[in-house]
Amino acid sequence: MILFVILVYDIHVKRVAKVLKKCRQYLNWVQNSVFEGEISDGNYKKLMIELNHIIKEQDSVIIYNMRTTRYYSRAILGVERCETGNIL
Amino acid sequence: MILFVILVYDIHVKRVAKVLKKCRQYLNWVQNSVFEGEISDGNYKKLMIELNHIIKEQDSVIIYNMRTTRYYSRAILGVERCETGNIL
Repeated sequence: MILFVILVYDIHVKRVAKVLKKCRQYLNWVQNSVFEGEISDGNYKKLMIELNHIIKEQDSVIIYNMRTTRYYSRAILGVERCETGNIL
Repeated sequence: MILFVILVYDIHVKRVAKVLKKCRQYLNWVQNSVFEGEISDGNYKKLMIELNHIIKEQDSVIIYNMRTTRYYSRAILGVERCETGNIL
């Protein structure tokens, strides 16, 4: 199954580069500390395990995942930081 | 209609406090630059208009909105910055 995921993080400066690099392997960077994109179930689980190995308790990652994008839309105010194109 | 919204922003330091205050009127703060919550269609439109009055072109706000939360789930790695409780 393919999920659509929005991932936001608040990570200690010592670890944030590692988290950024890891998220880039699976998702699209759209804004500071925000990634989005389609991901397979398997890769989603892998990303969760790999992120858990990087972060410490005081770090925070929230993952919103949707099994369909049919009931979902996305709006931008101001500038779009990164051209993700229409991945939906 | 009630929407479930995830709002992320990247705002110039001169305006970020105003945007934070405005988002707090309608949604729950969950992490730096990240709000979520249920919002009526009417309030959603009001929030968009009010944010547009605050931000400038170089600022960026992305709003993910869902018309149902049936196909959606939320996961946390590390600490949850703010106790939003189970608002879904």
